[in-house]
Amino acid sequence: MFIGAIEAGGTKIVCGIGKEDGQIVDRVSFPTENPDVTIPRIVEYFRDKSIEAIGVGTFGPINLDKNSPQYGFITTTPKPGWSNFDFLGTLKTFFDLPFGWDTDVNAAALSEAVWGAAKNLDSCVYYTIGTGVGVGVYAEGRLVHGLMHPEGGHVPVKRHPDDAFAGFCPYHSDCLEGMAAGPAIEKRWGIKGSELPVDHPAWAMEAHYIGQALTSTILMLAPKKIILGGGVMHQEQLFPLIRSEVQKNLNGYMNIPEIVSGIDSYIVPPGLGDNAGLCGALALGLAALKQGS
Amino acid sequence: MFIGAIEAGGTKIVCGIGKEDGQIVDRVSFPTENPDVTIPRIVEYFRDKSIEAIGVGTFGPINLDKNSPQYGFITTTPKPGWSNFDFLGTLKTFFDLPFGWDTDVNAAALSEAVWGAAKNLDSCVYYTIGTGVGVGVYAEGRLVHGLMHPEGGHVPVKRHPDDAFAGFCPYHSDCLEGMAAGPAIEKRWGIKGSELPVDHPAWAMEAHYIGQALTSTILMLAPKKIILGGGVMHQEQLFPLIRSEVQKNLNGYMNIPEIVSGIDSYIVPPGLGDNAGLCGALALGLAALKQGS
Repeated sequence: MFIGAIEAGGTKIVCGIGKEDGQIVDRVSFPTENPDVTIPRIVEYFRDKSIEAIGVGTFGPINLDKNSPQYGFITTTPKPGWSNFDFLGTLKTFFDLPFGWDTDVNAAALSEAVWGAAKNLDSCVYYTIGTGVGVGVYAEGRLVHGLMHPEGGHVPVKRHPDDAFAGFCPYHSDCLEGMAAGPAIEKRWGIKGSELPVDHPAWAMEAHYIGQALTSTILMLAPKKIILGGGVMHQEQLFPLIRSEVQKNLNGYMNIPEIVSGIDSYIVPPGLGDNAGLCGALALGLAALKQGS
Repeated sequence: MFIGAIEAGGTKIVCGIGKEDGQIVDRVSFPTENPDVTIPRIVEYFRDKSIEAIGVGTFGPINLDKNSPQYGFITTTPKPGWSNFDFLGTLKTFFDLPFGWDTDVNAAALSEAVWGAAKNLDSCVYYTIGTGVGVGVYAEGRLVHGLMHPEGGHVPVKRHPDDAFAGFCPYHSDCLEGMAAGPAIEKRWGIKGSELPVDHPAWAMEAHYIGQALTSTILMLAPKKIILGGGVMHQEQLFPLIRSEVQKNLNGYMNIPEIVSGIDSYIVPPGLGDNAGLCGALALGLAALKQGS
């Protein structure tokens, strides 16, 4: 059995075919251009494939309310052509199949729970820290949505005492994304994060912000695993720094083994590595097939 | 059909009998003393009642992991006699009935979703702000637990610029509870909150802290309703101040009607008023009966 997967990012679209065990057997990618250009490419790729469902994990914000006439739309993105675009509805006119539909980060959280670092667990939180910060939440065996999907990249954070950087988020200036996403590092230090040495003070500052957000996440949701992906997290020296921040912040309050003694296997990189996104779309497609939606 | 309900607080225990529609038909309350004194009182109350299940919403922290030998225990409380006490297991030796078991705040969140301010919604977050701060999370139609239950009262918060108070939380000093619970107000201003005038600057400061926590909650979970209970929230002037803080913090980022134009009916007091706790235990009992657990 084969399932189609669409990982729609702001810069590129990855389409693939995968199996029930999470194995990706084929993939293709192309730049995210105007939907008039991009949709035909997606349709062309899947047209001759024997697939039983398609999952879409996409950039957002998106409408996830099945009772809304705008369900399946990309909503307020500045990306030309995609604002208020009926992404899911357009795909459905070409394929009479069950469709899964969620954000790229919720998809990644799901794939990590099904096949990755949170396998066999009923909860995890997935952070991607790169050009922006995104959060996917999986709790009690389900992806979490409410009025909309999580936008946890924009939570307020306390400033690091040595940090004079104003923050770059156009809405909140010094929220988590404004202080800790890749562009914040570059603007604060005048050099790309990937070019900073591993013992540069930038990383302790970065861990201060990420650790703070993770502390709140643990206190609010106590997920069974926290997974940190995205370009910034390729800086592996961040992991021990972030784990220390979390323990320092909690100060023994959540006295559970995963946090007190097992934190090295509690706050971890994606088990699926760079496949988390596409596998996430695959997992959404599989779930849609099972639900017949 | 009648269901038993136990609302176990740090100072008093309320036992009651209720019906499927949330109506409480009988209740009794007594101080929370040592379990040797308290358990027999609970047993005595329910002994001659024709009930089909019992729900327990209790102070914590508690063990909620059904695979743990300590499932049903009160864990690390300083309350004499209750630390590492098998509360649920002890009750089960007296009553061969399905038992519901969760924190008092999760119970309150559930009752508000079943009969109260979040009726017919599949998500809500319940805050109680009183002697301490507690949070119950209901998402995707389920109460949320992970490694343990939420402890969202202890999330980090940014200080108000005019606030020199150190905070009173023994673990984190200036976390939400340390800055915004009843004792913080009293220690900061030297007078009980209930004796401060409604236009005192204490309330704007209080709204700063609560509004910040709610902002994070909305960004992480986007619950369909936020319910604020507890003694501090009897100060009704706080509601408009908190709503303004949330809108100011989000700064138009979550552009959804509930927050932009409908916030007066989005951040609200408990629909069940002072019955939220006992009704919550009732709802836990009903849920246990349906699941046959």
